Formats: sequence, C-alpha cells, structure tokens
Amino acid sequence: MSRVAYVNGSYRPMAEAWVNVEDRGYQFADGVYEVIAVHGGGWLIDEEGHLARLGRSLAELQIAPPMSTGALRLVMRQVARRNHVENGMIYLQITRGVAARNHAFPKHSLSSCVIMARRLPAPDPEEMSKGVSVIIIPDIRWRRRDIKTISLLPNCLARQQAADAGAYEAWMVDDDGLITEGAASNAWIVTNDGELATREADFSILNGITRLAVVRLAAEQGISFSERAFSREEALRAREAFVSSSTSLIKPVTVIDGKPVGDGLVGPICRKLIAAYGVHMDSQRAAKS
Amino acid sequence: MSRVAYVNGSYRPMAEAWVNVEDRGYQFADGVYEVIAVHGGGWLIDEEGHLARLGRSLAELQIAPPMSTGALRLVMRQVARRNHVENGMIYLQITRGVAARNHAFPKHSLSSCVIMARRLPAPDPEEMSKGVSVIIIPDIRWRRRDIKTISLLPNCLARQQAADAGAYEAWMVDDDGLITEGAASNAWIVTNDGELATREADFSILNGITRLAVVRLAAEQGISFSERAFSREEALRAREAFVSSSTSLIKPVTVIDGKPVGDGLVGPICRKLIAAYGVHMDSQRAAKS
Repeated sequence: MSRVAYVNGSYRPMAEAWVNVEDRGYQFADGVYEVIAVHGGGWLIDEEGHLARLGRSLAELQIAPPMSTGALRLVMRQVARRNHVENGMIYLQITRGVAARNHAFPKHSLSSCVIMARRLPAPDPEEMSKGVSVIIIPDIRWRRRDIKTISLLPNCLARQQAADAGAYEAWMVDDDGLITEGAASNAWIVTNDGELATREADFSILNGITRLAVVRLAAEQGISFSERAFSREEALRAREAFVSSSTSLIKPVTVIDGKPVGDGLVGPICRKLIAAYGVHMDSQRAAKS
Repeated sequence: MSRVAYVNGSYRPMAEAWVNVEDRGYQFADGVYEVIAVHGGGWLIDEEGHLARLGRSLAELQIAPPMSTGALRLVMRQVARRNHVENGMIYLQITRGVAARNHAFPKHSLSSCVIMARRLPAPDPEEMSKGVSVIIIPDIRWRRRDIKTISLLPNCLARQQAADAGAYEAWMVDDDGLITEGAASNAWIVTNDGELATREADFSILNGITRLAVVRLAAEQGISFSERAFSREEALRAREAFVSSSTSLIKPVTVIDGKPVGDGLVGPICRKLIAAYGVHMDSQRAAKS
C-alpha cells in the first residue's frame, strides 16, 4: 500500500495509520471491505456497483455506515490523489468499531473506516499473452460468501496453497463437486460446446463487480452465456478459462491443475472480453471527466 | 478490557493501544488467540493447555511465535499485574503481522502480539442457581473450527442471534442435525439415560481447554461419559445441559429453544462438575503459589 491512509477522520502516514486493538475488525473480523480499480488518471471503475455492494454488506451485518455515500466518494478520491494513484486500486474497510471484547454486537460503537490506495502496474504482458495457472481445492469457507467480509483467513490459506503450487489462483469446489469461485476472483470457463459460464450469484460466492460487468459485456458482444455452476471435470474439458476481479480485471487461465486448458493458448472469447472490458473502463473515464 | 495492553513490545494505555491498519489480523483475520482464566489472586488456570493449543494454532497457520513460551508467560503475568486482575481473564492475540495487502503469506513479516487482561465478577449467582438458556441454529462456519482463529464473524452473528432471542448462547447444528458447539463455548448434555456427552474434538469444534478439564473431572468423579455428537432432539430430551469455556467456566443450561431441560432445574451432575471444577481451579493456585 501507499504512503497515506485515511483512518477514522484523518489522513495518516502509513507508519502511523493505526486502529485500536479492541477494534472489532481486529478481534472478530467483524467488518467488510471493497477494492475499487483506479484507471486512466484517477477514475474509479464501477464505483456505483461497489458502493451498492458495500451498502448491502453493511446492512447484512447491521453495521452502520461511517459516513454518507457522498462523503465516502470524496474521501476515496482524496486518498487516491494524496497517494498519486492514477492507475491502481482503492481499498476501503469498514468495521463495527471499538468496544470491550464480547461476541455479541456492542450497544454503542462508532463504525471504523480505513481507506488506502496503491498504484498498480498495467497487467503483466506475459500473463496476458500466456495466461496464468489455477489449482482446484476444496471450498472450506463459511456459508455467507455473498457478504464481502474481512473474515478472509480461508481465502488467504487457499491463495497460499496456490502460491506453494506455483499457481496464480485457487478455484474452490463445493461438496457437490462444483466450482464456487477463486480465493480472490470469480471463475469462468468457455465450455467444450463454446458456452461462457460462471456460477450464479447466491450465498456460495461473492457477486464480483467485475463479474457483473463481464456478464453485461458478454451479452453486448453476443457471446453465448449461461449463469450456472460447473464441475472440475467440465473445467478440465473447457476450451477457455479466465478469472475476473477488480485488481486482476480479466486474466486468462491456460492451465488448470497442471493440465492445459483447450490448446493451452489464450482463447478468442477471453480476448474479446478483455478488449471489451478495456473499452468499458475507458468509457467510464470519458463519462466522468 | 482494562487499562493497559501489551502491544508488540510495549505496555500501552488502552486508548493508545494500536496496531497498524495493514496488520493482517485487521485485513484478513489472519491470526489466532487464547483466553485464559485468572483465578484466586492472579493464577492462570490451565496455562499449559492454553499454551499448547496456541502453539498448535500457530503451527497450523504457519505463523511464527512472536516470542518464546517463557517470555509469553512473563508478559501475561505482567499484563495481569498491571491491570490488577486477580480474578478475570487474559486475552492474547497473535497475527501474521504487518504487510502490504496480498492474500498469500508475506515473505517477511513479524508476528504481532497483543495481550490484554480484564477483571471479571464471580459467576452470577442467579445464572448458577437458575441456569441460562440457549437457542439452536445452523452452523455456517468454516471447516477448520479446531484452529482458534480470530476469524470470528460467524460466532459474533450467532451470539447476537442468541442475544436477540434473549438467550445466553447459541448452539450450532451441522448438516447431519448434530450439535457442534456453542458460539463461544462447548456444549454438553446429560442424556435421558444419564450419560454425560460432548462432541468429539475433530475439525468440527474447538477443543476447549475447559472442555478437556471437564472430561478429566468426569472420569475422576466416576460420571458415565461418552465423547460423541448429539442431535437437537436428544438435547431437547436431555436431563441436564451446560456449557463450558474459559470465561463461562461451567454454566448450567436449563432452557433449550424455549423448552425446559429435564425438570428445568440445575441437575446433580452439573452441580457435581461445577464443584469439582472449583476444586480444580483452587488446586492450581495451591500448586503454583
């Protein structure tokens, strides 16, 4: 992360960006977050979608918003500007705040809000031309994955398992043998029959904002698409595969569990969606500038 | 919590007891904890068991211990002393430390360590004579409940659900209809046949240190005991019920889902174990003083 963070009302150098040890985010993972891509000189990509999801996450956990949505927009821009982030990401975390440790919600607490920003390099050309690899592991997470909480330990373990295997991401399978999503991204395939597929957004996955954009772009591009779960076996027989997230954007997957996807090259539907997503990001800059 | 906390090498007033916003405990719930009862003038109850479990939790997550066990013992005592805690609890939290946000483990990070202490009143005489109530809800947590992690959001939601229902604790049931444990305690019944039962300690529950003590005490007291899971139906037909934890100690449960347990009074086996646990605590003071 970058040099300055917004922490509960003030802008602090990172080394002095602190929260109290009794913040419920620290003791209970009692909080939510969002990651928003910054593109093209400081524009926030799909900001409305992220703020809407944030509002839903807060409501599901009965955490009070720390400020108005308008104020949040201003602070996010201020953090991006103070950190000279023209291309990168904004990280926003809201917790139930500080209270004497007790599992049940405190009667009185002020929600904590931390906002950071970081520059990110453009997508790695080699990753984009050759694709990345994923491994498939059991999904051991809790059952409300639709809420974007900071209770991310299983995701960290999954991502570390991927790193240990030399892979970019871990896709997780449920008890029915169906893939839910990646540890920090949504999972997509183009089936052997040429149909684009990603799991329906119920409690079993996080409804990615980039995922939603790709669903719309696929329709606009006339790509055959089905919102449905797919198995590890189907993924291994797929023509193409990719992941989507606010920081990965759309990243081609060419190896699953050590086996090449299709011919092992980045496929045409993935390329088409990457191009369309680039236009999508650029169009937001144009619309907001 | 009390006035002074140990935070990464220094003793800080609570209002200035801070951790960095990029502490992985805050962003990912990437850490573990222990709660140790303090009794009889400052003695730590079952300290060995807690430190052994802490070591296991750290090893399972590949988090480096922040200091030697000997140093940890000293700091815990120092925190109890500085907070004048003669009867109460010590809370100890260790996380993977501060690193730029990325799900996979950082290559280099120093584990963070926070230790607090709080005075607790003696068990509420009314709760001990009348018992408390529990509700039964689905267990939606992740699958490695054997690790005592700070990823406690589902436990908070469960405990809040209990509070909303006017109950002390929520017992959780798995997909097979069997009770796993409480949101912050282990679950026990004395069956209709007079057999004490608590679920076996596999990945599905946390192996409570108080639970282990009760298992030993039951054997010493010649109480018929079976380490096995029981269903909601069996719990509703039970003669007695109670919860165990480092802060609840042994607390009788006389109402489950609104229905009286047995005759609705605290039962003889529960009373016997509460008395034996009191002796167990006192014996540690004697042994260590």
